[in-house]
Amino acid sequence: MELARSPLAPERFPDLPPVAGVRLASAAAGLKKSGDRDLLLAALDPGTTAAGVLTRSRCPSAPVDWCRRALPGGSARAIVVNSGNANAFTGAAGDVTVQRTVEAAAELFGCSEFEVLPASTGVIGQPVGPDHIADALPGLADALAPTGWEEAADAICTTDTFAKGATATARIDGVPVTLNGIAKGSGMIAPDMATMLAFVFTDAALPAALLRPLLTAAADRSFNAITVDGDTSTSDTVLLCATGRAGNALVEDHRDPRLDEFRRALDALMIDLAQQVVRDGEGATKFVEITVGGAQSARAARRVGLAIANSPLVKTAIAGEDANWGRIVMAVGKSGEKADRDRLSIAMGGVEITRDGQLVPGYDEAPVARHMKGREIDIAVDLGVGRGRATVWTCDLTHGYISINADYRS
Amino acid sequence: MELARSPLAPERFPDLPPVAGVRLASAAAGLKKSGDRDLLLAALDPGTTAAGVLTRSRCPSAPVDWCRRALPGGSARAIVVNSGNANAFTGAAGDVTVQRTVEAAAELFGCSEFEVLPASTGVIGQPVGPDHIADALPGLADALAPTGWEEAADAICTTDTFAKGATATARIDGVPVTLNGIAKGSGMIAPDMATMLAFVFTDAALPAALLRPLLTAAADRSFNAITVDGDTSTSDTVLLCATGRAGNALVEDHRDPRLDEFRRALDALMIDLAQQVVRDGEGATKFVEITVGGAQSARAARRVGLAIANSPLVKTAIAGEDANWGRIVMAVGKSGEKADRDRLSIAMGGVEITRDGQLVPGYDEAPVARHMKGREIDIAVDLGVGRGRATVWTCDLTHGYISINADYRS
Repeated sequence: MELARSPLAPERFPDLPPVAGVRLASAAAGLKKSGDRDLLLAALDPGTTAAGVLTRSRCPSAPVDWCRRALPGGSARAIVVNSGNANAFTGAAGDVTVQRTVEAAAELFGCSEFEVLPASTGVIGQPVGPDHIADALPGLADALAPTGWEEAADAICTTDTFAKGATATARIDGVPVTLNGIAKGSGMIAPDMATMLAFVFTDAALPAALLRPLLTAAADRSFNAITVDGDTSTSDTVLLCATGRAGNALVEDHRDPRLDEFRRALDALMIDLAQQVVRDGEGATKFVEITVGGAQSARAARRVGLAIANSPLVKTAIAGEDANWGRIVMAVGKSGEKADRDRLSIAMGGVEITRDGQLVPGYDEAPVARHMKGREIDIAVDLGVGRGRATVWTCDLTHGYISINADYRS
Repeated sequence: MELARSPLAPERFPDLPPVAGVRLASAAAGLKKSGDRDLLLAALDPGTTAAGVLTRSRCPSAPVDWCRRALPGGSARAIVVNSGNANAFTGAAGDVTVQRTVEAAAELFGCSEFEVLPASTGVIGQPVGPDHIADALPGLADALAPTGWEEAADAICTTDTFAKGATATARIDGVPVTLNGIAKGSGMIAPDMATMLAFVFTDAALPAALLRPLLTAAADRSFNAITVDGDTSTSDTVLLCATGRAGNALVEDHRDPRLDEFRRALDALMIDLAQQVVRDGEGATKFVEITVGGAQSARAARRVGLAIANSPLVKTAIAGEDANWGRIVMAVGKSGEKADRDRLSIAMGGVEITRDGQLVPGYDEAPVARHMKGREIDIAVDLGVGRGRATVWTCDLTHGYISINADYRS
């Protein structure tokens, strides 16, 4: 099944500059039946630090298991990503494939196996040949270049309808640094999975102990604040690698104000990538931003936001361009977070609909109905019980989602 | 929008005998725009005990708030249920309507206001006139009769495509008792909500202190084990009333073996009603039973079962008649409950697909594919980490669901 490019896709892939210390190569290694590009090698200069955020699934893929063991080392020399096969639910055979892959990469780059970080996305339950990926690595190593970001982003796609990338710059203590990121998600066709992968590279000099809190905070505001259908993959992986080639002074505390600009750039880049994933949500026709204020905490606000964003009733109402605020009340109620029915305020498209738990007197649906016909939908909720705020993003739930996931037989 | 009767509906409404001490009357009171039957009065003989299970929504309707205050009294003389308006998110006006309703019923039956239990389902955010329901009660009281169960079940429907009822008998210490139940759910049309209501009546003599644990346990095995779309209403209410007219000896402990037969009958009746709700799930074309074994506890097993049952990817795969066990692995993983990837077993239609974390050698999809084409789908999962078991029920997610919730504008 060939999917049409999402109507919410950006016009084109952005221009990503080289990041000093990062080289890329990608190829078609026969893991996708289509014969499309399906293997990415990212080579990182010696001294590169790394941090990662991995799926919380209790049934993680073999590459996720490896990354969980390797990331505490905090160092990375190579990232190997394949699409077309998730190497998940493949038992001992899956572990062998990962072992052979990281051994081969470690030999090529003269590094520890734990400095090789693999990721896989695609069909689950079908073992990859143990040497399938390893055998393709020498050829890729010969082709490494500081360019090729769009091809790299394309190589990690499965049923995405567009390749996803973003770039940003920042200064650390006056020294300019670059950040590039690529991501994939969240198309899925039986029996594929909604795996979300993202890889962010910077030439900043940042120890791994500092990358970890920066990445965790940015992931909370970006990839952990999006949802297409509430399903969690066995393979979700976000990696942040810093080559140190920009030559900025080392900062020791992640709360150091000299990192403020970098932190903002990282947050913005990851939010951009996360929003691109939502914009490629299966069958999506509307991009939805949900802001929750007045919650007991930021965490509570995000949970309420995700309860709204994951509600099939809310999502279908948006698909139907229906300003159905009653379903938002329902979703707030089911979130389990503290809310006060008699203080709840809801606005859509900037128009206040309810205030203090009741419909605003003289509420006119016409401007809200016009807003619902647009591509970008804005929902704001105030719980009236505290000062916690959060923003989450999702898409609508349409016939397209059902068609992609039910009508198509693999 | 007129909805076609669900293809999963039972052939006809069952024959419900009278329950001594219970009289019913229903009418069209103008709360449904269609002019259909929308008000039910159930009158209960003096001495009737009652217990209830109410929505956990943090934004409950006004009638739910009332029941939460009244139920600790453990006594009931009247149940007043209207459809067409949920009296939810109606602020102080909603509370006034409930107050007038229970006052009117209390006067009619010469009882305390706290012996009147109201429930409402339908449009939210639109106040009901304060005396709208109260004014209709005297006429209903004149029409009370021990028959009319199908009409009663019909009066509480909103967008249900069939009226739901069930009956059972049991003996307590040798004395025969009858149980009747009616339920509604879970059709919903903008801006209605997926409210689930159920009322169970028995002539058994059972103190309220005994009804509560019996009802809670039965609700856990029935209404808390079903899901259509994972959304929770502001108004969900299950009430159990016992008139005592059967004259059985009083039992003091809810674990007394003399209650075993009654407990089994109550469980079976509530599971029957709950399954009827799933069979009327919006757009449902398949009824799905999911059994989870080998969990750390029964509670963990139910959570895993509901994670599978609520997964849009699993539900669309079933709609597509696709034996997509990979999505079941994903759902198990995301449930958050302990599972061992390398011990996980999955069977569909009685055919073992995976065992010990891998595809069964020589797995033949043909018999499973045949099973998926049927109306009744059976999924069995064993987590391999304990002895906890649970069964949950759901339906598939189809274009019909999207059409009902997105295409139709209220």
